[in-house]
Amino acid sequence: MTTICVDAMGGDERPEVVLEGVAAALAADGELSVLVAGDEDVVVPFCAAHERARALVTTQSIGMSEHPTDAVRAKRDSSIVRGLGAVRAGEADGFFSAGSTGAVFAAATLGIGRIRGIRRPALACAVPGSSGRMTVFLDMGANADVRPEMLVQFAHMGRAYARVALGVESPRVALLSNGSEDSKGSEAAIAAHEALAQAGPWFAGNCEGTDILAGRFDVIVCDGFSGNVAVKTLEGTAKFIMAEVRRAVAGSKRAAAGALLLRPALKSVAESLSGDRYGGAILLGAKAPVLIGHGATSVEAVKNGTLAAAKAVRGHLVDKISEGIGQGE
Amino acid sequence: MTTICVDAMGGDERPEVVLEGVAAALAADGELSVLVAGDEDVVVPFCAAHERARALVTTQSIGMSEHPTDAVRAKRDSSIVRGLGAVRAGEADGFFSAGSTGAVFAAATLGIGRIRGIRRPALACAVPGSSGRMTVFLDMGANADVRPEMLVQFAHMGRAYARVALGVESPRVALLSNGSEDSKGSEAAIAAHEALAQAGPWFAGNCEGTDILAGRFDVIVCDGFSGNVAVKTLEGTAKFIMAEVRRAVAGSKRAAAGALLLRPALKSVAESLSGDRYGGAILLGAKAPVLIGHGATSVEAVKNGTLAAAKAVRGHLVDKISEGIGQGE
Repeated sequence: MTTICVDAMGGDERPEVVLEGVAAALAADGELSVLVAGDEDVVVPFCAAHERARALVTTQSIGMSEHPTDAVRAKRDSSIVRGLGAVRAGEADGFFSAGSTGAVFAAATLGIGRIRGIRRPALACAVPGSSGRMTVFLDMGANADVRPEMLVQFAHMGRAYARVALGVESPRVALLSNGSEDSKGSEAAIAAHEALAQAGPWFAGNCEGTDILAGRFDVIVCDGFSGNVAVKTLEGTAKFIMAEVRRAVAGSKRAAAGALLLRPALKSVAESLSGDRYGGAILLGAKAPVLIGHGATSVEAVKNGTLAAAKAVRGHLVDKISEGIGQGE
Repeated sequence: MTTICVDAMGGDERPEVVLEGVAAALAADGELSVLVAGDEDVVVPFCAAHERARALVTTQSIGMSEHPTDAVRAKRDSSIVRGLGAVRAGEADGFFSAGSTGAVFAAATLGIGRIRGIRRPALACAVPGSSGRMTVFLDMGANADVRPEMLVQFAHMGRAYARVALGVESPRVALLSNGSEDSKGSEAAIAAHEALAQAGPWFAGNCEGTDILAGRFDVIVCDGFSGNVAVKTLEGTAKFIMAEVRRAVAGSKRAAAGALLLRPALKSVAESLSGDRYGGAILLGAKAPVLIGHGATSVEAVKNGTLAAAKAVRGHLVDKISEGIGQGE
């Protein structure tokens, strides 16, 4: 039995949405048990009504707009802080929250700690590719300034996650830059390229923003500043296109009819880019798998995030990262 | 009469596509004359057949995959080098090429020089916004590492371009970062934020990748590394979505019917993101307006790029940049 602690208070939606997602995960996975952290009136009735669900009653919750580290320090009885404490204490093997990314990151780093040898944890996500192949992308924004050796660690962590989440045996890693030639990049990117080229034969060189959704590499690494710019630009572009299609539809009956017929396809594309289908973002480098869903919570996102956390536990993600770092591969 | 020099040899398509675009620009603008640079058999017959068109016969052309500065040094009789030489000599007021961005950038910097006081020219483009308002975005990739004072100059140049191209009286400028709070950013972005905050009341603070296509600001500035990541991610996301829609269409008759009806809308969205509708990228900081089209040339892109160059000349873009820099605004 794998136990995942789920934060019932996280996300923009009501806790009911999270609970429905947890119920769906329990139904989908008979070897899963959950520890549900949150307000008594939210978690106790749910756990009474569901097998393999235990309540962790807390009295505080951290909002999406609160300052992450301040909130984590001040709210010791919040669902995020207590939930990660339960993981540290061995009461759960992994954690999922649809709450504030910054707060989960801060609480996890303080609460469950880093894998030995890891300088800085990073945030990763698995993005779809037009080739049908998925790509692990990191850092999504945890570390704005990185040194070359940190990017090498990101590559090791990304490879371990690609093995566990995507089932790729020997993941190939590219470095995001402003051109695919070896000589392209900022000073930091050029130094990172050199360090990665020495790190292993799995390094495939530089890539560009156009490669993120092309499915050409198993892992793409970059600093958290450009990584955040990239994922936010991706999100903004998808939103823009959907809004423009809606605008065209509002102005034309012909287009409206077309949109209706094409709706399942457009919905599927939008979902594939929201990250919810793949469990959201994962914090790599912590001593247990910690998954963070998109703030705009959905039942599907919570279900997939909880299942992805269980998959990372069963795939021994932490051990695989630890081995990669220890051997320098 | 405004004279624009057009590189007939640039771009992925045959010169005929460029010439057709030039003819369309001449037809649309009676106060426009063109100097067409390229091989004799390409440009001479065209200029004989069109009023207000003069030929600049050259014998070399620079390919899209050649090393920019090497090619510019080696090919002194190329359409790009000679065309920009003609601008320097006063034979034309501005330049348009659908060729290699790097080669045009290098040849323009060497050939026509920088506006007095400008440290580094930058590449800008005007992107559409879901609010209906457009945004000038720079640097698209010319300067991977930038100092704070360079970003302040980018802001001045972007504001001048927003006035001329978008007709905005008092353009507001945001800094692209990994969060909208003042404290967010890499060390370089935080230093740039401080410099911009002191530069003028037009500075609106930090923005994120989601804001690029939201039409919230008149100008967004960033270093050329993240800027390149952003525009390439934007391009890649648009491509991914269109490819996914095509894939859905191939698998379903219903979706295919929908796509047919929705085609004009999807085509319009794709075009609005290609940059061709707004004349492509502009090199800001050179002593004359230099426009660079997307490599995948179309008649429309050449027409719009040529007209945009003329508009920049008539709007006194260079003088406006010069004034902004001189006064530190």
